[in-house]
Amino acid sequence: MNKEYCIAVVGALGAVGSEMIRKLEESSLLIKKLVPLDVKEAVGKEVTFRSSSYKVSEAKAGAFEGVDFAIFSAGAEASSILAPIAVKEGAVVVDNSSQWRMDPSVPLVIPEVNPESLKDHKGIIANPNCSTIQMLVALKPIHDTYSIKRVVVATYQAVSGSGNAAIRELQEQSKDVLEKKETTSHVYPHQIAFNVIPQIDIFLENGYTKEEMKMVHETHKILDKNILVSPTAVRVPVVRSHSEAIMLELNNPYELHEVRDLLSSAQGVVVVDNVDTLSYPMPIDAQGKNEVFVGRIRRDESVVNGLSLFVVSDNLLKGAALNAVQIVEKMVEMKIPLL
Amino acid sequence: MNKEYCIAVVGALGAVGSEMIRKLEESSLLIKKLVPLDVKEAVGKEVTFRSSSYKVSEAKAGAFEGVDFAIFSAGAEASSILAPIAVKEGAVVVDNSSQWRMDPSVPLVIPEVNPESLKDHKGIIANPNCSTIQMLVALKPIHDTYSIKRVVVATYQAVSGSGNAAIRELQEQSKDVLEKKETTSHVYPHQIAFNVIPQIDIFLENGYTKEEMKMVHETHKILDKNILVSPTAVRVPVVRSHSEAIMLELNNPYELHEVRDLLSSAQGVVVVDNVDTLSYPMPIDAQGKNEVFVGRIRRDESVVNGLSLFVVSDNLLKGAALNAVQIVEKMVEMKIPLL
Repeated sequence: MNKEYCIAVVGALGAVGSEMIRKLEESSLLIKKLVPLDVKEAVGKEVTFRSSSYKVSEAKAGAFEGVDFAIFSAGAEASSILAPIAVKEGAVVVDNSSQWRMDPSVPLVIPEVNPESLKDHKGIIANPNCSTIQMLVALKPIHDTYSIKRVVVATYQAVSGSGNAAIRELQEQSKDVLEKKETTSHVYPHQIAFNVIPQIDIFLENGYTKEEMKMVHETHKILDKNILVSPTAVRVPVVRSHSEAIMLELNNPYELHEVRDLLSSAQGVVVVDNVDTLSYPMPIDAQGKNEVFVGRIRRDESVVNGLSLFVVSDNLLKGAALNAVQIVEKMVEMKIPLL
Repeated sequence: MNKEYCIAVVGALGAVGSEMIRKLEESSLLIKKLVPLDVKEAVGKEVTFRSSSYKVSEAKAGAFEGVDFAIFSAGAEASSILAPIAVKEGAVVVDNSSQWRMDPSVPLVIPEVNPESLKDHKGIIANPNCSTIQMLVALKPIHDTYSIKRVVVATYQAVSGSGNAAIRELQEQSKDVLEKKETTSHVYPHQIAFNVIPQIDIFLENGYTKEEMKMVHETHKILDKNILVSPTAVRVPVVRSHSEAIMLELNNPYELHEVRDLLSSAQGVVVVDNVDTLSYPMPIDAQGKNEVFVGRIRRDESVVNGLSLFVVSDNLLKGAALNAVQIVEKMVEMKIPLL
């Protein structure tokens, strides 16, 4: 008989947490119990899961007893304190924050890209940054076949990456601008409605933002440390789904039709690329979908073996909640011992 | 005594045309008469210029008699027919459309970049594409000092580049989305509100859009035919001002502080780049301004002599109306014979 799991979701009421619960509902995992955890203020609120109702408990020591998997989307600070506690209480943690990603003892996993890393887990598994996940799902088949030398990427990132408050901020500011009223900003340092902000996360000493350097370091940890990455991360007034203009230099020559075939048959990828029907990936088409959409596939003549792409995916799903749930599924599928 | 000029604006009521009239008002040019021209349907409407009122006449043969400069912003088709007529009637044409830009007999001019090309004019002078202008104003001082090998650019372009109808479309769609109503698209093939569209202008055989190839060809004609350009042009839900993430490979080593100094003292450029105050160029700050704003200046470690920038400018001003008026001013300043 297959094992039935007890799964906790930490940050169950957040933008990503609520998507995690939906993705767990759709999953083929046998789940005997859901444990929704959140901050003290949310205790007692109800979450529906596979037609049962579960009350939210406080995410704190003791909450993880009997839990097999604890999927965290509660931010780096909460994760730094609670993840080791969860592990101590017997749960395998899949953490969506940046807290553990670069820890050498923590596997950083995209199931389509590096599932074998799961075998090395010591209780905590990190979910990569949203911009990294969709980029690497698209680049993995290309790297396997032609070897990627350098990636130049400019992002067009949705506000939902900053949580539900940011979605409300975009909506309220948009309404204010349309009604010619003054706007106020709380989540972002500047107005995001009808604007673009070339800053995501804090600035580091080298002039890059933390978001940009995540794309560099996580690419090295997940795919290949030899790939050179030049990132620019920009917030755009889109609710959901990140877009990325990606310009690649490959180490080997390629044919465009081969790349299209490779991507078309790649796991988790959908090619949307037909100039006759003006079809290409866009955020409004990707939202609510599980796949990574790739289009604008074209030869970059400005460099040897140059290849350009436009990649879009729902940042709350494959970029966060879905990937975390897929990590759990992959561990079960690969029969990896928990703790 | 300095000459006083008669200046016609073709497409006087459009998004760019009306900005041209405002920029002519602010100009130091001695203007004895403004001739606002537009389509038949607009004839009789009034345009105010330096506290005089001028009636709109039809843009057609005969309308350019006595005109010294005719500044066109009426699209490529109107320009293909009317520009030669205007020249025949004695006017020097400064054309904002794509019609004449790549014609070898037509100078394509950004006054800060290649004013000397004006000397070769034969009646028609072309105003470059908006995305090209702001990019090259920022790149010119860098190219002069370090020699640019390759430019990778991803754009974040405002809807006003498609005219007033596109601004209304963005506003109406945004309102519909906020009120949870269905949206309709007329100007763009897809919804632009809360979305990004990785297509500007039509697709060409090589998989690039015409907008993207304009950035390649115009860079070659204006700045240097040896510069390699890899463009991705994307429409974003912004009313005014284009943004560009630009990643450069230079032929010579540089110091970041030298680049900052160069840009700070470059004509038409304002450096906005202070991570302590979270200052960088953004569309909402650039709109209505004449300058090209440059920030996020940082070393790109993924390539030898790599340099990354974020460049923003008002697409209707330096990207169109202002540059056209500056071409007229520069011709007068350089005492270039008209016809």
